[in-house]
Amino acid sequence: MSLIVQKYGGTSVGTPERIRNVARRILETQAEGHQVVAVVSAMAGVTNNLIKLADDVTGEGFPTEREMDVLLATGEQTTIALTAMALNSMGAKAVSLTGAQAGIQTDGVHTKARISNITPDGVHELLNEGNIVILAGFQGQTSDGRITTLGRGGSDLTAIAMAAAIDADLCQIFTDVDGVYTCDPRVVPSARKIEEISYDELLEMASSGSKVMQSRSVEFAKKFGVVFEVRSSLNNHPGTLVKEETMSMESIVIRGVSLERAQAKVTISGVKDVPGTASRIFGAVGQANLLVDMIVQNVSKTGITDISFTVHKDDVAKAEAALRPVMPDLGEGVTLEATDGIAKLSVVGIGMRSHSGVAAEMFKALSDSGINIEMISTSEIKVTVTVAEGDIDRAANVVHEAFGLGAA
Amino acid sequence: MSLIVQKYGGTSVGTPERIRNVARRILETQAEGHQVVAVVSAMAGVTNNLIKLADDVTGEGFPTEREMDVLLATGEQTTIALTAMALNSMGAKAVSLTGAQAGIQTDGVHTKARISNITPDGVHELLNEGNIVILAGFQGQTSDGRITTLGRGGSDLTAIAMAAAIDADLCQIFTDVDGVYTCDPRVVPSARKIEEISYDELLEMASSGSKVMQSRSVEFAKKFGVVFEVRSSLNNHPGTLVKEETMSMESIVIRGVSLERAQAKVTISGVKDVPGTASRIFGAVGQANLLVDMIVQNVSKTGITDISFTVHKDDVAKAEAALRPVMPDLGEGVTLEATDGIAKLSVVGIGMRSHSGVAAEMFKALSDSGINIEMISTSEIKVTVTVAEGDIDRAANVVHEAFGLGAA
Repeated sequence: MSLIVQKYGGTSVGTPERIRNVARRILETQAEGHQVVAVVSAMAGVTNNLIKLADDVTGEGFPTEREMDVLLATGEQTTIALTAMALNSMGAKAVSLTGAQAGIQTDGVHTKARISNITPDGVHELLNEGNIVILAGFQGQTSDGRITTLGRGGSDLTAIAMAAAIDADLCQIFTDVDGVYTCDPRVVPSARKIEEISYDELLEMASSGSKVMQSRSVEFAKKFGVVFEVRSSLNNHPGTLVKEETMSMESIVIRGVSLERAQAKVTISGVKDVPGTASRIFGAVGQANLLVDMIVQNVSKTGITDISFTVHKDDVAKAEAALRPVMPDLGEGVTLEATDGIAKLSVVGIGMRSHSGVAAEMFKALSDSGINIEMISTSEIKVTVTVAEGDIDRAANVVHEAFGLGAA
Repeated sequence: MSLIVQKYGGTSVGTPERIRNVARRILETQAEGHQVVAVVSAMAGVTNNLIKLADDVTGEGFPTEREMDVLLATGEQTTIALTAMALNSMGAKAVSLTGAQAGIQTDGVHTKARISNITPDGVHELLNEGNIVILAGFQGQTSDGRITTLGRGGSDLTAIAMAAAIDADLCQIFTDVDGVYTCDPRVVPSARKIEEISYDELLEMASSGSKVMQSRSVEFAKKFGVVFEVRSSLNNHPGTLVKEETMSMESIVIRGVSLERAQAKVTISGVKDVPGTASRIFGAVGQANLLVDMIVQNVSKTGITDISFTVHKDDVAKAEAALRPVMPDLGEGVTLEATDGIAKLSVVGIGMRSHSGVAAEMFKALSDSGINIEMISTSEIKVTVTVAEGDIDRAANVVHEAFGLGAA
């Protein structure tokens, strides 16, 4: 008998009928001889309704974050009760637990708390008594008893953290996709589902546009060695197993290709190559809370260089507004230019650590198809380029094919 | 500075705008120099929606009571968060607490738990820090951390129990009526609001049809000496103060008149007047979970007597079904008869302890108006009769007038 943690998102529990489907799937898992802890999110739409109510009662003001957490936590509490009673009505022994009841302790940063500790004695006890445990995702409590929520991707995090705390054999993240793909199948029709992927590869793919899971949950899984499977709640196909890298994984050079549209490039030209320049630029951008990616600066021979970075195109105006006040500090003749209409393409794979020529092969594939590369940036297991947004689908297909990622 | 507990029901917090009105009233109370703990119910309609969801997910089955409590408790949790954030948005310091967070401990009887203990240290601490405390009504938790709800009238009970635990100076129960009236003003236009009433009088009026508050809350207030005021959330009129009886209260013989429609009379005739007969009859009725009232048995001279009682008319069939199996045990010639179309009329007042002739005066007023009395039953501070349902409005008016209860 093994111990399995399952996680079902808001769409999977979006209606009473879907909750009954989830209950049946949990029952099947138990019937296969497993102990089950199922983490559930708020029913789709509920969180937005609660936010609307909060806006309505606060008028011109803003909801306090402490109270926002008390409010939002009711969403998951509703789902755990409904899921447990659905299971009970099917003859199963099931018991619901809120985050607080399950011993999930967090820091006090309301609306985006971090899990600081889990005391899973109660969960173990309920499991040993033969119960299925239905656990509220996304929530916990502080050491002094305040209700907290974990922010975006919080229910995935609850599942993975609880799997670590109770030493589960497997953690299954049920979503609306079959698993992690070599590329987005809507863009690259020959893309296929990846059977196994390392934490680092999934992290790099997530950070470059493959929105299967939030990075913080993958990082947590990596830190505590939690093996998890991303799979569909709509069918019974096996999904993608995410785990520590193995020797055999390295034989595949590139695991997948990810892409991100709607990017913009901001270039500051003619800056002096002296200490403090980059810090001044990115200090200003950081204070504006903008997510900056792909910072590129070339070596200068003349003491004058250009610095470029990408942001989402919706953030261009904010980036320009943040930078304008620091422009005078950067010296005379410095110019600021922003252009959108670009997209990012990345190839990711731990195998590239032991294989040379990955970047060259990627550039050749693009060049052979007449696709121009604007910026280049690399990490240990990822090569990223920017291309014109109109070229991105074609670029993804040629690179996907060049690395032989398509179905055999 | 005094400490006030206020309670606002589901209608008072039924919309975001109404929650803002409640917030303003709480602020006014604070501005008068008081510390405030406000107990709130679920927004009107929310509980019914949750029950509907529970029915939907359980299909043919029944929701488990443990999970029903987890589900229903979200209703009040939503309201406390919204009320606290409304207050915060108006510049006040307010903090919400669930029943569990407020230290309200109950027994483990889900959906109708009893409060076993309150540890109000956290509430005191928050008040001393200058906070308004917004407390979830209707809920608590067991000593082993399960969420419980208190059943009907639970929010009133929360308010009164918390007022006792923190030694509040006053507890205000806000409802949609101005207070307790000498009779239902829809029936008796000259009825007037009572300024002060004793616990016992309110209990007797509640048990005979005046549905201002559930008896359990009044009993709790009596036990712990909690003075409370029933008043309207729609205006600023003073309400009715409910407290231990005082000497001055006794000068008024009758405090009020209450009535209850849709009653039925069940009579078992010709039973032997021997020990065990009543127990057999009411044991059977009690097992069917029927609320029985006004049991009347006359002294017998022949060893044969009749036993009558009233039930709600909707329960007549159940009462007959429950009694039929025990009829053979009651002896030969025993008959069972049930008739509906009757109503109960009661006069209540602690003054009648020291004044004779109350019953006689009531009977004379009815007789003078040609209204026939069927059954009579009396307690120390109440006289109840049944009349034909068609006569009840007229009966209430003539009795109300006979005791001089109308506006001066």
